[in-house]
Amino acid sequence: MKSKISNQILKGESHNGIYQRAVEVLTGGVSRNTIFRKPHPYYVASANGSYITDIEGKKRLDFANNMASLIHGHSHPAIVKSVTEQLKKGSAFTMATEAEVTFAELLTSRSPGFEKIRFINSGTEAVMTMIKAARAYTGKSMIAKAEGAYHGTYDYAEISQTSNPSNWGDIDKPNAIPVVQSTPQRILDDVVIYPFNDIERTIHLLDQNADQIACVLIDPVPHRIGLFPATNEFVEAIYNWTRRNNALLAFDEVVTYRVNYAGMQDSYSVKPDLTAMAKIIGGGFAIGALAGKSEIMQVLDPRETFLRHPHSGTFSANPISTTAGRVTMEMFDEQAVSNLNALTMNARKQIEEVIKIADIPACTTGAGSMFRIHFQKNAPNTYRDAYQNKETKAVIDELIDYLFLKEDIIVINTMTCMFATSLTQKTVDRLSEALLRELKLMKPILDSLAS
Amino acid sequence: MKSKISNQILKGESHNGIYQRAVEVLTGGVSRNTIFRKPHPYYVASANGSYITDIEGKKRLDFANNMASLIHGHSHPAIVKSVTEQLKKGSAFTMATEAEVTFAELLTSRSPGFEKIRFINSGTEAVMTMIKAARAYTGKSMIAKAEGAYHGTYDYAEISQTSNPSNWGDIDKPNAIPVVQSTPQRILDDVVIYPFNDIERTIHLLDQNADQIACVLIDPVPHRIGLFPATNEFVEAIYNWTRRNNALLAFDEVVTYRVNYAGMQDSYSVKPDLTAMAKIIGGGFAIGALAGKSEIMQVLDPRETFLRHPHSGTFSANPISTTAGRVTMEMFDEQAVSNLNALTMNARKQIEEVIKIADIPACTTGAGSMFRIHFQKNAPNTYRDAYQNKETKAVIDELIDYLFLKEDIIVINTMTCMFATSLTQKTVDRLSEALLRELKLMKPILDSLAS
Repeated sequence: MKSKISNQILKGESHNGIYQRAVEVLTGGVSRNTIFRKPHPYYVASANGSYITDIEGKKRLDFANNMASLIHGHSHPAIVKSVTEQLKKGSAFTMATEAEVTFAELLTSRSPGFEKIRFINSGTEAVMTMIKAARAYTGKSMIAKAEGAYHGTYDYAEISQTSNPSNWGDIDKPNAIPVVQSTPQRILDDVVIYPFNDIERTIHLLDQNADQIACVLIDPVPHRIGLFPATNEFVEAIYNWTRRNNALLAFDEVVTYRVNYAGMQDSYSVKPDLTAMAKIIGGGFAIGALAGKSEIMQVLDPRETFLRHPHSGTFSANPISTTAGRVTMEMFDEQAVSNLNALTMNARKQIEEVIKIADIPACTTGAGSMFRIHFQKNAPNTYRDAYQNKETKAVIDELIDYLFLKEDIIVINTMTCMFATSLTQKTVDRLSEALLRELKLMKPILDSLAS
Repeated sequence: MKSKISNQILKGESHNGIYQRAVEVLTGGVSRNTIFRKPHPYYVASANGSYITDIEGKKRLDFANNMASLIHGHSHPAIVKSVTEQLKKGSAFTMATEAEVTFAELLTSRSPGFEKIRFINSGTEAVMTMIKAARAYTGKSMIAKAEGAYHGTYDYAEISQTSNPSNWGDIDKPNAIPVVQSTPQRILDDVVIYPFNDIERTIHLLDQNADQIACVLIDPVPHRIGLFPATNEFVEAIYNWTRRNNALLAFDEVVTYRVNYAGMQDSYSVKPDLTAMAKIIGGGFAIGALAGKSEIMQVLDPRETFLRHPHSGTFSANPISTTAGRVTMEMFDEQAVSNLNALTMNARKQIEEVIKIADIPACTTGAGSMFRIHFQKNAPNTYRDAYQNKETKAVIDELIDYLFLKEDIIVINTMTCMFATSLTQKTVDRLSEALLRELKLMKPILDSLAS
């Protein structure tokens, strides 16, 4: 009977009404924990530019942009047009399309380190394929990753993403802590956890497993660590270590490719061997990509007599994602990147001004078109410094609810904004004004957090 | 400069011309090894129903349907219409949509074992999430999987997918063979490889690791093993073993959900605890899903105080894939499943008749809307029996090229057809006639393979 009910378009339902149906069929009522809210998530009717209208007709200003994946905001007409045209010609075939070639040409032309590319389906798949390619190329099996960094849901890449003071151990040798219950101990044993931006400790930890490390994984501006950039010194030190030890420097630019025209990697004096991408390069559609040096990418080449990394994927390089991605990235040209970064920098300055006026202990971190607000006086430099305890998390949840429900503004649940070209100075002003009202109101509790 | 070139739509290019551009930017010139052909892949201009037209204007009849993912063929008007409408409203948000709820209601109403569902982005992600959920629920880390079975690219699930006579070892204890070079030994140690449909040996192997196995992974009609169904006795024996040993029965129905209205699992007297899906349920767009018992799916529930399996995904349950999927699966109702299976059965009968007339040693295996042609007299029952050596593979490649280039017919590279509702008896006749011509022509070499 359920299927008959579902066939009707049920008009006029409330968020809670839909959620009550959702919990019957989706575990917890959601497919992404990031969109879960108490007492229920909110359901979208439509979205345009920087505005999302929910099913009850409430219109909100969006600074989350689907977790940093929409660089031009919602329903950009050029993307809608190109995908609508492609749709009529088909969405996926057991054959190639020119769309994947044209898009690969565009991406390889942007970043000098992208000699070859391969498209995949998600950021999780891109990071997993990058790690497997590093193993196949180096003949080694272990990886190193930063404590607190999020790299998708492949076990190796997610170890210690949610480490906390009760389990993270000595900073000289951070514990490898599973995210998912009963992650095989053997995976934990294969992952070296390093403290982000801490050259001395990191090199020491890498040295202890030098014979076995296939790659050092770095998100150059890791959102979950605290959204502050890896220093050039740190990236250089790791790069030099990998040169000495037959290992690869593997960048996760799933989020950070937006920072410069050529990705965050353009900010450093050395370049990664491999780069994983996703988010904005799909133009709003599921995509992932692995790019890097030809010699390394060759492990995936089906023309090789001995194919070291056989790899395929039903929806990889489908013409919907590659067409939307190409149109998106063509519009995100050097001028657009520069304009967007300038707008974001202005927003950060305004918010820092707001923090001063409200006289609360807070600061911002970020890079390019991304920033995060921290409720501590000085900008954090490490995961452990930026770590939010339960009390801080609860206050941030309250702030985010306030913004969402009273100010009709959407930000990411860590108090992070990921800008899109659809935003304007006027929308930035609205954000600053809303934050000023909110932070003033919450000054007592924010003061107490920092004390 | 490359980006400027890519901005032009280059008309009138040849397949080889595009491929020469492709090899400059994509490793091996492709993103999916399955679409690679020598000397070059073929590039699609457009596709409609069961026909794909390439950029040189050649129109081919498609029995591959993007590796079994298009149950209604290409560009079905109802799917194009619904996605076009959704596109204008946005493709992804950091909020929920009713589309995911309505689609989850439809899927849970079809299969009694689907108490709860979670949407993901691909079959690879669905199987990975299923294995991680099984670990989180049982508190154990190892898995068991069938020799030769393909379950996507998560290392644990891909072990021994490409085992061959030189490395597969004793059938009483098949070796765990990596697909990707330098897969960690610790992963190999965590995977028990069992011989498909062999109850006695499989139970014996499972018993040896009973304390540590979280789930037994079964594709009930594994394409790469030979596309023959798991017997009811085998599934029952595994199910009973899992009941005795605190383990889960995990079905990979990424390909096989098409077989019955409620999936291939409807063919068995016992039901899996968890099921991974993808392919057809995305209606031509990237999707994956994990479904199963509420109690087990609860490991993913963000409302839990102790969340055993934290999990999110930027494009999970996006309204493009869930809308296309819902429309697709609504049209694939009980009558449509039944009609498609009848058409496919008829095709199989005709092809078996063709095999007799051509007087060659061959047979077919399959289930529902899928079948595979084997070039051996008797239908294989095991992976090792169905295994194609280099000589057989070369002949099959030749047959497939002949079909593609001379008969304008597309089949999957194992000589497999995955039917779609857009096919008709007339197209089946065309396939049979083409096969008759081809098999007669190749009789001498086909005879020699079997001798």
